[in-house]
Amino acid sequence: MEAVDYHAEERRKAEFNLEEMKIVWAGSRRIYEISDRMARLVASDPVFRKDNRTQLTRKDLFKDTLRKAAHAWKRIIELRLSEEEANMLRSYVDQPAFTDLHWGMFIPAIKGQGTNEQHEKWLPMAYKMQIIGCYAQTELGHGSNVQGLETTATFDPQSDEFDIHSPTLTSSKWWPGGLGKVSTHAVVYARLITDGQDHGVHGFIVQLRSLDDHLPLPGITVGDIGMKYGSGAYNSMDNGLLRFDHVRIPRNQMLMRVSQVTREGKFVQSDVPRQLVYGTMVYVRQTIVSDASRALSRAVCIATRYSAVRRQFGSQNGAPETQVIDYKTQQSRLFPLLASAYAFRFVGEWLKWLYTDVTQRLQANDFSTLPEAHACTAGLKSMTTSVTADGIEECRKLCGGHGYLANSGLPELFAVFLPTCTYEGDNVVARFLMKTVSQLGSGKKLVGTTAYMGRAEHLMQCRCEVEIAQDWLKPSVILEAFEARAVRMSIACSKRVGNFSNPEDGFAELSPDLLLVATAHCQLIVVSKFIEKLQQDIPGKGVKRQLEILCNVYALNLLHKHLGDFVSTGCITPKQGALANEQLRLLYSQVRPNAIALVDAFSYTDHYLGSVLGCYDGNVYQKLYQEAWKDPLNETVVPDGYLEYIQPILKQHIRTARL
Amino acid sequence: MEAVDYHAEERRKAEFNLEEMKIVWAGSRRIYEISDRMARLVASDPVFRKDNRTQLTRKDLFKDTLRKAAHAWKRIIELRLSEEEANMLRSYVDQPAFTDLHWGMFIPAIKGQGTNEQHEKWLPMAYKMQIIGCYAQTELGHGSNVQGLETTATFDPQSDEFDIHSPTLTSSKWWPGGLGKVSTHAVVYARLITDGQDHGVHGFIVQLRSLDDHLPLPGITVGDIGMKYGSGAYNSMDNGLLRFDHVRIPRNQMLMRVSQVTREGKFVQSDVPRQLVYGTMVYVRQTIVSDASRALSRAVCIATRYSAVRRQFGSQNGAPETQVIDYKTQQSRLFPLLASAYAFRFVGEWLKWLYTDVTQRLQANDFSTLPEAHACTAGLKSMTTSVTADGIEECRKLCGGHGYLANSGLPELFAVFLPTCTYEGDNVVARFLMKTVSQLGSGKKLVGTTAYMGRAEHLMQCRCEVEIAQDWLKPSVILEAFEARAVRMSIACSKRVGNFSNPEDGFAELSPDLLLVATAHCQLIVVSKFIEKLQQDIPGKGVKRQLEILCNVYALNLLHKHLGDFVSTGCITPKQGALANEQLRLLYSQVRPNAIALVDAFSYTDHYLGSVLGCYDGNVYQKLYQEAWKDPLNETVVPDGYLEYIQPILKQHIRTARL
Repeated sequence: MEAVDYHAEERRKAEFNLEEMKIVWAGSRRIYEISDRMARLVASDPVFRKDNRTQLTRKDLFKDTLRKAAHAWKRIIELRLSEEEANMLRSYVDQPAFTDLHWGMFIPAIKGQGTNEQHEKWLPMAYKMQIIGCYAQTELGHGSNVQGLETTATFDPQSDEFDIHSPTLTSSKWWPGGLGKVSTHAVVYARLITDGQDHGVHGFIVQLRSLDDHLPLPGITVGDIGMKYGSGAYNSMDNGLLRFDHVRIPRNQMLMRVSQVTREGKFVQSDVPRQLVYGTMVYVRQTIVSDASRALSRAVCIATRYSAVRRQFGSQNGAPETQVIDYKTQQSRLFPLLASAYAFRFVGEWLKWLYTDVTQRLQANDFSTLPEAHACTAGLKSMTTSVTADGIEECRKLCGGHGYLANSGLPELFAVFLPTCTYEGDNVVARFLMKTVSQLGSGKKLVGTTAYMGRAEHLMQCRCEVEIAQDWLKPSVILEAFEARAVRMSIACSKRVGNFSNPEDGFAELSPDLLLVATAHCQLIVVSKFIEKLQQDIPGKGVKRQLEILCNVYALNLLHKHLGDFVSTGCITPKQGALANEQLRLLYSQVRPNAIALVDAFSYTDHYLGSVLGCYDGNVYQKLYQEAWKDPLNETVVPDGYLEYIQPILKQHIRTARL
Repeated sequence: MEAVDYHAEERRKAEFNLEEMKIVWAGSRRIYEISDRMARLVASDPVFRKDNRTQLTRKDLFKDTLRKAAHAWKRIIELRLSEEEANMLRSYVDQPAFTDLHWGMFIPAIKGQGTNEQHEKWLPMAYKMQIIGCYAQTELGHGSNVQGLETTATFDPQSDEFDIHSPTLTSSKWWPGGLGKVSTHAVVYARLITDGQDHGVHGFIVQLRSLDDHLPLPGITVGDIGMKYGSGAYNSMDNGLLRFDHVRIPRNQMLMRVSQVTREGKFVQSDVPRQLVYGTMVYVRQTIVSDASRALSRAVCIATRYSAVRRQFGSQNGAPETQVIDYKTQQSRLFPLLASAYAFRFVGEWLKWLYTDVTQRLQANDFSTLPEAHACTAGLKSMTTSVTADGIEECRKLCGGHGYLANSGLPELFAVFLPTCTYEGDNVVARFLMKTVSQLGSGKKLVGTTAYMGRAEHLMQCRCEVEIAQDWLKPSVILEAFEARAVRMSIACSKRVGNFSNPEDGFAELSPDLLLVATAHCQLIVVSKFIEKLQQDIPGKGVKRQLEILCNVYALNLLHKHLGDFVSTGCITPKQGALANEQLRLLYSQVRPNAIALVDAFSYTDHYLGSVLGCYDGNVYQKLYQEAWKDPLNETVVPDGYLEYIQPILKQHIRTARL
């Protein structure tokens, strides 16, 4: 294949310094360099190839995943990679595996909920992978509601042990990744029962399989829960089921940092503040938002590059057809997603800062910002993941028919991302907002992302000053419109909740509207953090300018999409809404020449993207044609089954054929 | 397994006659009975089992599809099924196959575009399946834009033949179903060239494979294009690629009903009106809308049944948790989709009537209603298919984590439905609306679904009379609000297009807004056809009442979702919008007790639904548990790959392991 860059012309059009933009995207030059090194390491290693993944049977795919995980671990040890480097390497391998749970859930659970002695006993083994662990929380009949779990851990003072048991079918552990076939250990969540009393759900370290022959230990039934969404995708993971038939573990395998059971069977709460749990949640959610911006940016990169290759209609006098990226309909769907990828990247960065801030405060026994941080991270997690899932699917549609091919990479990207989406976060933020509104005027200090509510009086009656389309480019104008919308919707909803004699009934009855309030608030946060980012120094020719354009696209597209909110609360007039829409169209024209460079800035290798449509050089059609011949169906010219099932039809022998 | 009906209590709650509703859904008692008989026939035949489909390799899945197609054909012949019965049987087999294209595209293309002599020659062979055909239109570089196709058919007067050729890589035929491995013949679309002149795209019957040994004929390169979205799903179809290297066919294999090439090579247009093509399009689109309501109703059936089984949160004093179907958030997402399934069913029925009407008019040389029928069917096709695709995915989300399991049936339902979605229909209707608006007041008669525009003057200044929530139950109120919105958006957009000196520039620049106008118009059509349906006699206790509730849910949910349109055009006030929302909540409570029965009315067998979550008896958890053990990964307790890839990690031998 000739080394022609079909996007060369597009790349020349860019009006900003690409290298500097890459660093902005990565977060720092240091991270950019590590990330780039790890990406190349994975891309150049044949063990990590993944282009045949959707062709494998479940068993072969799983074995391939085990091989990749072992090889990655080998390379991590050989190259003495740091934890940061090792994490990046694993993420570029881009194939869900038991290691994700071992490093991402099992170890953090022990670190967060275990005592120092437990740390000393378990963590060194886990770090060396002498044991492999997973996180066994959800059950067949119980998902988000942890308090509804049925598995029991009954303390037996006689033997100083817990008896772990699955009393019902619905209590079977169900979904934990790495559980089905690999993990030797699990942190199991179960109802603690001492002396006939139920003390709620706690975590226990339970060995599942023998370290000698990998067979399940007595009393343990464990297996894989079966095929999941799509081909390839998350089927590389052994999501598992697990049942306990009175399995005994020593007392010191209950994670006892926050609560203990004494030798005598007494349940004791420690003086460690329970709020620490929320600190961990803030951490986990920050990584989820970060994953969302990454997944969305991959999809956007594929769709943008292919939109510059693909041509349709608009041919005049025999000239080539129009690049689809030049159509306003395409731009109006694609560019807001491009802007969202950047917006989520920056809000993710801010969440990292928030986590550090919260952690420092916790260490100083300052819990004042925790509820707000808890609520806002829950809401952002929920909002960014759902926009990302929908956005990946939208990018697939934007690729036309070829987006439906497995080698477009988009079906698998979508399938793999889906489990990241969790929706219950909206409720958390909605309830927090209602509480905040109810305390307005009480003198309680409004912190962090709810600070704007302190200006409720002004925001309830302010009028948007936009007179011409260009006025919509002012950050202060955008910000005030979003703040006013969020405040007005919150207060209106709060009043309606107040009309119910029992507020819980009000919450239940109005929950769909409360979710809209939560969305308004979370969108405001993202907009405001994007604007804050732009108040910093950002080096590199044209870089800041491009980000300003994207920030405006992000905000004005939301305004256009949720026009009903803005207009019906009187935050803006219909005329101002129309002006915003007009400005948005102009912004699309400004994004257009920079679009390819803006996705190049993500710096994704062709291996990582895993998409024929999104390949760097844009030589899409030749690659599609070559890839097609690799399908197993093309191994023979006449398909297997011809003699039994096609010939009898053609030859009119079907009545007598043995099928 | 005990035969317990876990939904029995839910079924008792229903307030309407289920059997009568089943007939309303089917369209008539006769169709209901045939449909039911065919569904049972397929469900009870072990050859048609499909529960292991996502486990098969591409080759095995394809062979399984050949077997099912042959078996179906055998049954059709043995039982002497009518064409109607045969079509239903094939649809209940529910596995995309080459037969779909043979019966659905190849034969209709010959019927529609062939001359009488061509009918006599080709149709008898096709009906007996002595030849199997497909429809080879799209090319690697060319999708919707038929006029952009590159394949050439050059007439050679010397030999009285066409020379079919693929001049470029992008001219390779790409996507046609049934082409890759099975079809012996194809209707190939190519640029007709006679005497150096290009006469645009025409259809040609080309034999691809030998009827003796199934090998491709000389000059023909043919193969499968590879894996598509998801597992199972559309991978049962041999979507193909096809290249011609100067393949010769006799002149009489050009489909010559509308245009001919004479023996001398002269290009002649026949006097058959070209508008006939649109008649066929109306037919095809009507079936697509019908398919959409079917796919959406399957997803809704699964999500509704499982929402009544699944419980989460809300437990008080140790009582069971709340059924998720009782949550207003769940209702506000699920019930509008339930209502949409019914709405699309009825608009599909109306489209059947429209097709008959158009056909009769065409036979009487009356073309007056054709442009309107063409536009409205294009728009409805586009709108219903995109709502359905999004709706299936929404149903998956509404099933929580278990919706992500392949055996929920939803991932495959989504993947199979996606290719039905085509978006270009919006443009057709938008342009038609702009033309209609520009002719207002010219005295030109407004027909069919645009008749309301004749009342533009009134609709531009009418005021919605809603004062209390209940007012929103009046069909006339709803209808006027939707009509006013559509007219006002159309006229506003038309004015803006008029501001451009070249209207084509206006269309291009404002295309995103034009699509919103198209949506407003199409939603009005669906609402108005639903309302018309309710003006008929509908027998059966409570049946009409339930449909009225669903009609109101459908309309008011759209109003809520597109509040920005209604408020910013002044069709309703923000206060009236809030009242609609309030009424909507009350309607959800009325749907709730009937929800299970309303999906039972679709009369889908467990085989056809193909979903553990949606099974009729609701015994979900036991089935999930049993299904899990069937995964090939569970064939052994210790997974293949343990010795090579897991043990070396655990035993700290990874550095020396050969991976």
